[in-house]
Amino acid sequence: MKPAMFLVTPGAEHLAPEFLAAGLVEGAAEFRKFPDGESYVRLLEDVSGRRLVLVSALNDPDQHLMSVLLTAAAARAQGAEAIGLAIPYLPYMRQDTAFREGEPVSAVHFARILGQFADWVVTLDPHLHRFRTLGQVFGCVPARAVTAVPAIAAWIQSTFARPLIIGPDSESGQWVKAIARITGSPALVLAKTRTGDRAVRIDLPEVGRFGDHQPVIVDDIISTGTTMARLVSGLMAKGFRQPVCCCVHALFAEGTQAQLLDAGALQIVSCDTVPHPSNRIAAGKLLVDGVLASLEL
Amino acid sequence: MKPAMFLVTPGAEHLAPEFLAAGLVEGAAEFRKFPDGESYVRLLEDVSGRRLVLVSALNDPDQHLMSVLLTAAAARAQGAEAIGLAIPYLPYMRQDTAFREGEPVSAVHFARILGQFADWVVTLDPHLHRFRTLGQVFGCVPARAVTAVPAIAAWIQSTFARPLIIGPDSESGQWVKAIARITGSPALVLAKTRTGDRAVRIDLPEVGRFGDHQPVIVDDIISTGTTMARLVSGLMAKGFRQPVCCCVHALFAEGTQAQLLDAGALQIVSCDTVPHPSNRIAAGKLLVDGVLASLEL
Repeated sequence: MKPAMFLVTPGAEHLAPEFLAAGLVEGAAEFRKFPDGESYVRLLEDVSGRRLVLVSALNDPDQHLMSVLLTAAAARAQGAEAIGLAIPYLPYMRQDTAFREGEPVSAVHFARILGQFADWVVTLDPHLHRFRTLGQVFGCVPARAVTAVPAIAAWIQSTFARPLIIGPDSESGQWVKAIARITGSPALVLAKTRTGDRAVRIDLPEVGRFGDHQPVIVDDIISTGTTMARLVSGLMAKGFRQPVCCCVHALFAEGTQAQLLDAGALQIVSCDTVPHPSNRIAAGKLLVDGVLASLEL
Repeated sequence: MKPAMFLVTPGAEHLAPEFLAAGLVEGAAEFRKFPDGESYVRLLEDVSGRRLVLVSALNDPDQHLMSVLLTAAAARAQGAEAIGLAIPYLPYMRQDTAFREGEPVSAVHFARILGQFADWVVTLDPHLHRFRTLGQVFGCVPARAVTAVPAIAAWIQSTFARPLIIGPDSESGQWVKAIARITGSPALVLAKTRTGDRAVRIDLPEVGRFGDHQPVIVDDIISTGTTMARLVSGLMAKGFRQPVCCCVHALFAEGTQAQLLDAGALQIVSCDTVPHPSNRIAAGKLLVDGVLASLEL
């Protein structure tokens, strides 16, 4: 069997070395936008009879979606044998229910569109909350979730002598507990109480025996960072050291980084799933491992 | 049967009065983008049991697509009886073949995505060239094309005493001949010869008996306007009056309008299918007529 080929779409170029290291062959394609906003793609190498992996940057999803779909469609037309999407960050997952009457469950619809063009999907740390598994979101298209936890744990372990892993809410518990287990660190998963439409109260812990520990707040996504900024200043008011803010997916709205640093964050670090100046933790190898597992099925 | 309801997506608000005038009920929805680029939509009125028409602005398609699809999905989940898309301008239609090896036939893929969320489609003057009918593009979803020709003809007739309708190439012939027939004007459909990858020669006509006529160059789309600008100056060099440039869909890239006016264009006019300062010709009524025909099937 020919080795599988991979193609990086714009915004995922930095992940290519990990796919090459795993023995996949790199294909080439052209991507651009027409002046009227239409996406243009062209495969520059023959993909017929190949298993193809599209390493698909889908942050800023509406801007990126069509080029991913059209690349898959062009590959299908050229006779690619099977087409998988390796998605560093899967968007639309936070819209996983109709929070209010009249809202779509966008996560499912976005997944359904992807599934029309791909044979399988692998993604890093999807925001699974109301859906328990990625399979429930994607329906009949095989979908595999892998986690950046080992990479985050390794970074924390090599950087701090006495880390304290802190989760801002129960949703972050799965990452926090796994990282604490690998690093052999203590962990605190806090409780977030919604007191109004936009108001949130975090129950802050006492510093107790953690005065000499380095707090590392971990979440899957940082976007506006408002809650995390209040947690940073809250922890410091309780006598904790300046916390590090750590996430998998750096969606950072404008001003988020400044807000966290102003609140007292020692450092902001993220995995390289969404390109951002805070990227310090390479997660590509873990994405590749998931891809290899899906290719072998 | 309840009257059909319509909903305008962002960029199609100006078409609402024509749908109201036709007896459709206007629904309400909320549209916005999250800071990370995801589209958010919410239906603000109950659409269950209703036939729903989404008046869908799809120019700048990648920015607009998800909000149209998510609105349709939310309506479907709420029990809308049938969901139609009324699309003033259907994008991606110029990518109607693999011009070069490795290109997708994007027109078909874009249509297929729309067809996953809608029960029928109506659009104004789709760019049908290699596909002869809209049905071939949309496959199993009923798709109706209506034309802005009557509106353009009425505008020309009410504005100029002795118009001469000019088509820059054979593709524009269908619009030019129909407008000439309605207005009772003479028409010239020119021949465009491709002399290289980016070089095009237009065979210019002699002014002959048309010295006192008002040339009106008509095409379905003006985007970069390069060919039309050369036609404007070429016609004037041959002794024609300053031409008017007229199109259905004003996709105008940056600088297009200035380029046409610099070349000597008397005026630039377009239908209101793509919002633009050159919009002078209301085509909404014709779109509504197509919608009414599709609703009755």
